[in-house]
Amino acid sequence: MKRINVGLVGFGNIGSGVVKILRDRKSLLSEKTGLDINIKRICDQDISSRRNVSVNKEILTRDIKELINDPQIDILVELMGGVHPAKEFILEALKKGKNVVTANKALLAQAGQELFAEAADRGKSIYFEASVGAGIPIIKSLREGLVANKFNSIFGIVNGTSNYILSSMSKNNCSFEEALKVARLKGFAEKDPTLDIEGMDSAHKLILLTYLSFGRFVDLEDVFIEGISRISLADVNYARELGFEIKLLAIAKKENEDLEVRVHPTLIPKDHLLSSVEGVFNAIYVSSDLAGNLLFYGPGAGQLSAASAVVSDLVDLTQDIKAGLFRPTLKTVTDKSVEKLRKIDDFESRYYIRFTAVDKPGVLAKISGVLAKLGISIASVTQKEPSKAQLVPIVMVIHQAKEKSIRQALNIIDRMDGIKEKSVAIRMEEV
Amino acid sequence: MKRINVGLVGFGNIGSGVVKILRDRKSLLSEKTGLDINIKRICDQDISSRRNVSVNKEILTRDIKELINDPQIDILVELMGGVHPAKEFILEALKKGKNVVTANKALLAQAGQELFAEAADRGKSIYFEASVGAGIPIIKSLREGLVANKFNSIFGIVNGTSNYILSSMSKNNCSFEEALKVARLKGFAEKDPTLDIEGMDSAHKLILLTYLSFGRFVDLEDVFIEGISRISLADVNYARELGFEIKLLAIAKKENEDLEVRVHPTLIPKDHLLSSVEGVFNAIYVSSDLAGNLLFYGPGAGQLSAASAVVSDLVDLTQDIKAGLFRPTLKTVTDKSVEKLRKIDDFESRYYIRFTAVDKPGVLAKISGVLAKLGISIASVTQKEPSKAQLVPIVMVIHQAKEKSIRQALNIIDRMDGIKEKSVAIRMEEV
Repeated sequence: MKRINVGLVGFGNIGSGVVKILRDRKSLLSEKTGLDINIKRICDQDISSRRNVSVNKEILTRDIKELINDPQIDILVELMGGVHPAKEFILEALKKGKNVVTANKALLAQAGQELFAEAADRGKSIYFEASVGAGIPIIKSLREGLVANKFNSIFGIVNGTSNYILSSMSKNNCSFEEALKVARLKGFAEKDPTLDIEGMDSAHKLILLTYLSFGRFVDLEDVFIEGISRISLADVNYARELGFEIKLLAIAKKENEDLEVRVHPTLIPKDHLLSSVEGVFNAIYVSSDLAGNLLFYGPGAGQLSAASAVVSDLVDLTQDIKAGLFRPTLKTVTDKSVEKLRKIDDFESRYYIRFTAVDKPGVLAKISGVLAKLGISIASVTQKEPSKAQLVPIVMVIHQAKEKSIRQALNIIDRMDGIKEKSVAIRMEEV
Repeated sequence: MKRINVGLVGFGNIGSGVVKILRDRKSLLSEKTGLDINIKRICDQDISSRRNVSVNKEILTRDIKELINDPQIDILVELMGGVHPAKEFILEALKKGKNVVTANKALLAQAGQELFAEAADRGKSIYFEASVGAGIPIIKSLREGLVANKFNSIFGIVNGTSNYILSSMSKNNCSFEEALKVARLKGFAEKDPTLDIEGMDSAHKLILLTYLSFGRFVDLEDVFIEGISRISLADVNYARELGFEIKLLAIAKKENEDLEVRVHPTLIPKDHLLSSVEGVFNAIYVSSDLAGNLLFYGPGAGQLSAASAVVSDLVDLTQDIKAGLFRPTLKTVTDKSVEKLRKIDDFESRYYIRFTAVDKPGVLAKISGVLAKLGISIASVTQKEPSKAQLVPIVMVIHQAKEKSIRQALNIIDRMDGIKEKSVAIRMEEV
């Protein structure tokens, strides 16, 4: 049986999951593929700590060169994370004629275009199924399963930490801080959860989803990113009363000839499947022109879940290598119906807005006046019971309006006499 | 650019969708694949009626031999439906060295094992993504995306007609007959909807899902099949009051060393994603050991949706052909932890049961007595308001019990004096 040799860099959580699956499922995988997929060498800075899988110590090394320069290694699996030196390792591996599997969304979001071009030039592939939605085969589905489709939009809940926090706020009626604390205790949030809760991790994944669906590699600075750290329990509850759940969505959406690429908390109708996605689960809702609206749902993280995706990439690559395919991944093609990325100012959206006003007559009239002047039309208003401090929350739903106008309006309103706190504006999507 | 020639047999709804996509997406597909996928010949009994796509009349024929015997045709796409002569055409095509794409679940459910074996012997492949869930890439996901996983269970809503009927009964508070009438008017149900509403279509698809997830080809007669035609509005409403929706589920489920393969109406908890699947949509809920619980959701039918899946199969095959791969599909491997198919009598399940009793004291005591004697334990009882005819519906939820015991109990109870209608028993699943 032909042996395919794999070099693994990064012997952490997912890395040891991959080693475990390749060991425990050895006969299953060789029966399915007709190949022996063998981890020949593992590189990590730490080669002494115990992992939950045991390996022959002789295959461990601290020196990446022992993987890169080994002509018998066909595939480099990069699971070390971070941009440097992961990028350099991958480039070196491609130069040496190796194919690559990675789960590194931060790297791909920043340098994917360069890396994919390098791989294509050398007739090699970079597979990255584990980088979005862990074991959910979303990348394979977008690239292969929906190969003939054009896409209208992608709405993704792609960060488990944020979704865990938002759904526990809604389910357990607790504050952001309390929910984050529990998430940390359960291992669902890192010590420093900034990347997750401020939307950066979602943005990395969105860049990859946008690349696969619209064939465009969007720069990170062109993605509008807003996190969930300012979402209050009050807003979660008011939203629910209106028939909505708040979710952190990663959105790539065609609007006429423009493409909007953005990450932000979003009110979505309660009867939409996405609003039922709870806890650390992920879901990607894909609107395609032939296959229609599809949802892909599953755990968004986890050692074996992510490792399952890495192994599926490995199997795909081994089949390609066995066949001697040149440039085996399907080419990603730019959707030419998209003319440009839409600037943030020009985004149009419905809005949920909560104003905090003093309990005096005339405030609502003043707010409405400002909105009317800017051409912003109100769909509904609810004035809530005043708080102990005699502050009155006014919750408005706004019809489709331009981002720029909303910002102007809030700028004016927040400086008005009767307004006591910074107003909260959260976008709404019909999905 | 290398040309791959396709012969299409069956120029009906899906067939013309495939022709349309290959024409409209010609440049997209050749950019992605580096190949020219060309429909060289179309065979149909009717070559004179107008389709919603126009083709050169010279490629139309009534004679299948013109496709099978054409050495330039690399792939036969079979979209004629029915078992014969589709089976013979596919076998002939394989013999002549062609690969095959089909959407024919009825054929594959009956003769798949023979056809796949024949294909494997000849180093050819049969792809069948469109046969389950139309454009949802569920087959690719099970086979490739989850390649390293073992499966615990598959729960599928795989028949759009039945799901449309059940969800309109629940949403619009209408009877089965009324819902079916609307489904017919909207084109969601055939003139003779038996295959759909009696569960046979779901069973065909379940056989394919079971093959992909457990590596076993189950005979149709070993699948327990119960349709939805006896589901009454009363049961839909009582179920909803208890916090459940009734769905027609196709279930393949490991229980210890046994495999249960069954299609029947099922009460599932309202907060489960599957119970939010409405109308003609399909969803497959997959429980895997590495990637966890996944849901794949989308339209379960439709010309372009099914054709999208056929084209994705075509693209996969062309990549294989380009590479000169021998036996390109991953081998399906039998899950050896499954010892046998469980017999229907030994199925265990929770049950929703509705008895129809006369409004007299003592009936409930008699019912409970029978259940107790057979070791069936009651989880809850609700006695509803009597009807005009002074009949009292008694709704029970039963703890896990053996199919055989439930049947025995109902046999006895239904012959009791105070019982006025055949009792209704519907299985419940935790999912």
